[in-house]
Amino acid sequence: MNNIKELDKKYVLPTYARADVEFVSGNNARLVDANGKEYIDFTSGIAVCSVGHANKRVNDAICKQISNITHISNLYYTAPQARAAQKIVEASGYDMKCFFGNSGAEANEGAIKIARKFGEKDGEVKRYKIITLEHSFHGRTITTVKATGQASMHNYFGPFPDGFVYADNIAQIESLIDDHTCAVMVELVQGEGGVQPLDKKAVQDLAKLLKSKNILLMIDEVQTGVYRTGKFLASNLYEIEPDVVTLAKGLGGGVPIGVVMTKLKEVFSPGDHGSTFGGNYLSATAACEVIDILSELDVSGELTESIEYFDSEVENFYEAHKGIFTSKVGIGMMCGLRVKDADTLAKVISNARDEGVMVLKAGKNTLRLLPALTITKEEIDEGFNSLNRAVASL
Amino acid sequence: MNNIKELDKKYVLPTYARADVEFVSGNNARLVDANGKEYIDFTSGIAVCSVGHANKRVNDAICKQISNITHISNLYYTAPQARAAQKIVEASGYDMKCFFGNSGAEANEGAIKIARKFGEKDGEVKRYKIITLEHSFHGRTITTVKATGQASMHNYFGPFPDGFVYADNIAQIESLIDDHTCAVMVELVQGEGGVQPLDKKAVQDLAKLLKSKNILLMIDEVQTGVYRTGKFLASNLYEIEPDVVTLAKGLGGGVPIGVVMTKLKEVFSPGDHGSTFGGNYLSATAACEVIDILSELDVSGELTESIEYFDSEVENFYEAHKGIFTSKVGIGMMCGLRVKDADTLAKVISNARDEGVMVLKAGKNTLRLLPALTITKEEIDEGFNSLNRAVASL
Repeated sequence: MNNIKELDKKYVLPTYARADVEFVSGNNARLVDANGKEYIDFTSGIAVCSVGHANKRVNDAICKQISNITHISNLYYTAPQARAAQKIVEASGYDMKCFFGNSGAEANEGAIKIARKFGEKDGEVKRYKIITLEHSFHGRTITTVKATGQASMHNYFGPFPDGFVYADNIAQIESLIDDHTCAVMVELVQGEGGVQPLDKKAVQDLAKLLKSKNILLMIDEVQTGVYRTGKFLASNLYEIEPDVVTLAKGLGGGVPIGVVMTKLKEVFSPGDHGSTFGGNYLSATAACEVIDILSELDVSGELTESIEYFDSEVENFYEAHKGIFTSKVGIGMMCGLRVKDADTLAKVISNARDEGVMVLKAGKNTLRLLPALTITKEEIDEGFNSLNRAVASL
Repeated sequence: MNNIKELDKKYVLPTYARADVEFVSGNNARLVDANGKEYIDFTSGIAVCSVGHANKRVNDAICKQISNITHISNLYYTAPQARAAQKIVEASGYDMKCFFGNSGAEANEGAIKIARKFGEKDGEVKRYKIITLEHSFHGRTITTVKATGQASMHNYFGPFPDGFVYADNIAQIESLIDDHTCAVMVELVQGEGGVQPLDKKAVQDLAKLLKSKNILLMIDEVQTGVYRTGKFLASNLYEIEPDVVTLAKGLGGGVPIGVVMTKLKEVFSPGDHGSTFGGNYLSATAACEVIDILSELDVSGELTESIEYFDSEVENFYEAHKGIFTSKVGIGMMCGLRVKDADTLAKVISNARDEGVMVLKAGKNTLRLLPALTITKEEIDEGFNSLNRAVASL
């Protein structure tokens, strides 16, 4: 561990203030650090390890695939990519096509490119403006940083591309639409922004409004997608039909992947967009297996059962510590507890680690819980026992 | 194959005009398609499969690592990431630090962010302009599309970020520098642009000029890096000391990864940049093993021997078909042959596939060869036998 910290300090750019822990192995929702200490993981790598750590089915599928071939190029057909696209589209219930990249940022870049090309029609005024929400997070490329509705992130890296407009809330969007608006992009539950779900009726009304104005509704499901909220997409839960959806984190079970999917099947022509690695044998195989595992849990009712159990435990924890937590937010396995102040939140996270449970921060003062969707009742119980100990001394 | 083509057509956005072939397995520089037909691969997945297909050492390292843990988050230390950063920096010979993303585009986004932050100093006029070269290719995000010096790519997706300036050639760069210039970004051998190496002396003079003006020299080694040109970096071959270097394709042996490395060790503070997947256990482990394999081939002299043999075979092939090819370009295992016209090039590529050897196009009329760096003499011989048959009928 000391050696790794020294190497990290010497050779890695300091873009993260890393917590003082190095994990060496995991099993479903359990982690082991370099000192042999065990933890329950309520982070799942920020919603990435959707099927838990060291998932045997995913690992077997990966090792079998790469024993044959890992990567070739999108110049040729890649069977697992075609199959992953079919699984994604069928699980979504939407009539869409997919493009494969390597991250949520790349997926959102794809969405923005789709919106901008959609907004360009011969003989019409170019529509290029995209409305996003305050406190949103859409990525770390220069364009997705600008799409992110957090003024604090719009430093240093400009000139940023023009054409992003920020709404304080969903109700304000209509008043910001003008002749240049081509799309609205939102997270249905803002992951980094504080785990606050949007109001379902308000989203449905927005969807109707945008449809009537021929403006695209683009849902950033990088964090909410792939069963995180209990349905394949949060969009399914909200009973809307978006024009564009982006996926990433949980889709590959730990393998880098990002997808933009859209109803606009003809929007791109060959050469308009591309990716060297996107949807290769490795990442697409992982995505296929992750979707199979989670759709089985969905169909069997086990996913719903786990979500209900986890939610009841969050509720119990919240009720037991109302002096520390001021409200409970989130949907499905994407849970947040507002903490009375940021200092207390920092202590909760640090104490939790000491007590053997890993939890996350969101926004300024939200404790965020994003467990593996395969987490067991025993792991949930153990995690909340540790969390109770972590807050007992506050 | 027919089923896969149908699925691909139905569920995948048509951003590629895919060649009519689906590979199901590979072994070093050999590929097998769904019909059982064998090929010699002179593409290596566009320089990605640097250590060949189904490399046992890389696969064993990956399977061992993911049996423990695949991903956690950059909020915590990841030992393989620290080790990969050390290996990359030490192999480069430069005093730098690394940031890990998931693709060449993400690596170049990182470089542009570094340049723009470097260009912002209290009390000084903001420097934000980045000069790139005509025919360059830097990626598919909106900003890297704009950084790419190909006017044909600057359609549909605007407004693009301001601040990119294009030089017709390296000699023109000096005249384009103004008070707002913060960096120059170039590929030493343009991969997509036609495999044309820049002149070594001209690059060294440019490096001196930029140093004297406190302007960053950023080398896009997404395609040239990781021993593709015979040295770890093409920058090593050119005997320059860049301020920023980007890597991707060959680094992970097929696992999605991108790296930006820089001398400006303090340019980023925590929060300035980030990546969910970047440098996780999976991709960093693959990178470590790839670097180990290739550095051993470098030290033993085998890499140089393979490059010399491949080059002599390209030379023989070129000399034998001077009616078709007009010049030979490239460095190391990054080779190009200019074809007399684009129609003939299309026929060469198509005939080559029929004859059992996979080759690439670059620019408008360049045949591009990017074999695995582990390719054997037998595989090289077999590939050129097939290529000779492919052009015999033209």
